[in-house]
Amino acid sequence: MQFSNRTGSQQLNPIALSQAKALNRGDGIRSLNDSNPTRHGLGLPSLGVYAAEPRGPLPAREALATFLCQRGQAVSSEHLYLLNSTSQAYSWLLKLLCNPSDIVLEPRPGYPLIESIARLESVLTMPYALHYDGSWFLDIAHIRSLLEGPQGNRIRAIILINPNNPTGSYIHPQERARLIELCRKHGIAIIADEVFFDYPLDPIPGRQRFAGESAVLTFALDGLSKMLAAPQVKLGWIHVSGPDQEVEEAEHRLDMIADDYLPLSQIIADQIPDLLQLVHRQSTIVRNRCIENLQVLRTLLEEPGCPVSLLKAEGGWNVLLRFPAVIDENELITYLIDHYGYTGQPGYFFDMASNGYLALSLLPAPEEFVRGVRAILCSVEAILAL
Amino acid sequence: MQFSNRTGSQQLNPIALSQAKALNRGDGIRSLNDSNPTRHGLGLPSLGVYAAEPRGPLPAREALATFLCQRGQAVSSEHLYLLNSTSQAYSWLLKLLCNPSDIVLEPRPGYPLIESIARLESVLTMPYALHYDGSWFLDIAHIRSLLEGPQGNRIRAIILINPNNPTGSYIHPQERARLIELCRKHGIAIIADEVFFDYPLDPIPGRQRFAGESAVLTFALDGLSKMLAAPQVKLGWIHVSGPDQEVEEAEHRLDMIADDYLPLSQIIADQIPDLLQLVHRQSTIVRNRCIENLQVLRTLLEEPGCPVSLLKAEGGWNVLLRFPAVIDENELITYLIDHYGYTGQPGYFFDMASNGYLALSLLPAPEEFVRGVRAILCSVEAILAL
Repeated sequence: MQFSNRTGSQQLNPIALSQAKALNRGDGIRSLNDSNPTRHGLGLPSLGVYAAEPRGPLPAREALATFLCQRGQAVSSEHLYLLNSTSQAYSWLLKLLCNPSDIVLEPRPGYPLIESIARLESVLTMPYALHYDGSWFLDIAHIRSLLEGPQGNRIRAIILINPNNPTGSYIHPQERARLIELCRKHGIAIIADEVFFDYPLDPIPGRQRFAGESAVLTFALDGLSKMLAAPQVKLGWIHVSGPDQEVEEAEHRLDMIADDYLPLSQIIADQIPDLLQLVHRQSTIVRNRCIENLQVLRTLLEEPGCPVSLLKAEGGWNVLLRFPAVIDENELITYLIDHYGYTGQPGYFFDMASNGYLALSLLPAPEEFVRGVRAILCSVEAILAL
Repeated sequence: MQFSNRTGSQQLNPIALSQAKALNRGDGIRSLNDSNPTRHGLGLPSLGVYAAEPRGPLPAREALATFLCQRGQAVSSEHLYLLNSTSQAYSWLLKLLCNPSDIVLEPRPGYPLIESIARLESVLTMPYALHYDGSWFLDIAHIRSLLEGPQGNRIRAIILINPNNPTGSYIHPQERARLIELCRKHGIAIIADEVFFDYPLDPIPGRQRFAGESAVLTFALDGLSKMLAAPQVKLGWIHVSGPDQEVEEAEHRLDMIADDYLPLSQIIADQIPDLLQLVHRQSTIVRNRCIENLQVLRTLLEEPGCPVSLLKAEGGWNVLLRFPAVIDENELITYLIDHYGYTGQPGYFFDMASNGYLALSLLPAPEEFVRGVRAILCSVEAILAL
């Protein structure tokens, strides 16, 4: 496993060595240059003493670890990094793994945010294809050919969105086994974005998180934004797992990155235990909304002669609609804007292989959801009749 | 003014054009793919509807702008970017201004965090020297020679720490005028870190913030960490100013960066008005502590035969002590650790030009502060007597 030149192993200088010896003797050490006001009685009493922990305040990490263990994800607080969002997590992990012009693999179709974040880190993205033939699947042979190809030695990680947005497809058990094998063989890390994992729309046996995977260096991303339906909270986390030695080196370097930013506010950290209490209720409400809207959608699309169909979605908050590809995606959405006041994201926004797709959110309140779907159906029919 | 390739001007596609027209007609537009749960009655009621504003929630920016105006910094909320720390601000600004291997100028001596943050962005730093001859000053001719030198065309910004850490030196009025002239001539931006600005230790006429400077594109950084003595809050901001056209282009691109991360939690934003109320009280307490400890320090160093002296400090929370350079900095600190349980940051940590310096925090409670200073004096005397 290679890491980038952006972080490096810091050598202990004589001062650090003397400090380590003193601490080993059990001596306390104060710093003559300590500029943390909270250790000198100068801070706000309500916020206590600031410990400046790179991975985030320990009590908050422990509360999160307990929560994750209770729902079946065994994790110790020391392998969790708390930060403000999965975007920030991507940013840190790209810094950890990639020099400029190194490559990460990302799913196509996919949400364009990853490419934008990679560009901000001067990292290149290379798409691996998801194909559809009634359900979505990965072409493992294609991923292998990328890893063995002329740019293979610049590929540092594969990004797995589990389930992916907007395809709603999970990584299936057989795909997972092959991906892990490939990553081990080529020494690349897995970045698994699992923020939508707990929003299944369809039962699939054997569906599993990458979080906690021990066979390959794995950074699993999750956060309260989706789990709590609360994008304003700004709490995400990285769960590091894999072979012990690789985890140790990765965490050593990730600590340096985290220590430069120390992003998590104590004000948020203090609320984490209470917020976690709300997760079950909140995610149940959102999951039910998605499943009910999906059922309504299926009923509407079953009407005889309906020119719109639904791609099979396994999870997440969005689905993809298919309309006759004789209609241009821009034409349809322009029509929707002008006649119904609805805009939308067409297939090309996600790099779908062809024209004829539209992403649809399952979140709206039932009446509003039906209104939106009817607007789409009427627009498609009207354009076809032109 | 050049910007990096990490952001780029997004061209409006047909959908965006149709949306803009509809909005111009006064039509409301809903999105069929809206996956913001708070707009569909699914969020936490206590947090309201999430607006996802790249620069941070408007009410929080307005509260901050009002606060800044009240203390004499005229600024409109639209030129403020709220984020979690000045470290994050540096990260965003280096992305905005620098391709990999581009250069920013940074002060030497200086705090090593900037070099570390630049390395994480694959940006190079080039030091410009602060010299000391009874007070600190900038060698403007040296800065000019860097800008006109062989690597000058890769220099994208100059970082000004006002006042600098650990020298405690402000940018003086005549230096300021020359710096602005040089930056205009060479088309480089100013990143002015002014988190310690309101902690003067010595009166200097004409001392001024760079925040709001209109003659050159300027990004002034500040935050609650120092202002409120509350590093746990994690609220920093960027104040953008300069010639109109450059500000417009910079903000357009900075919006893209901010939009990818959207880091500021509503939970913090909601507390900003209350926290700002505490600034005057908190910063007065800390300022008084620093000034009182500095007075005590001067008295202690005035004892006849004292082998330690104080470099002139104009502001901030730290001062630099000078001890006989026949003692190695590592030797002194190792002695302090072993005999007194104190560690410290020696001059080489900040790239001082020679051996013989030690940084000292002015924050400790009075008794603890005196204990620390006495430990230094006794250690220096003991090593000299060896």
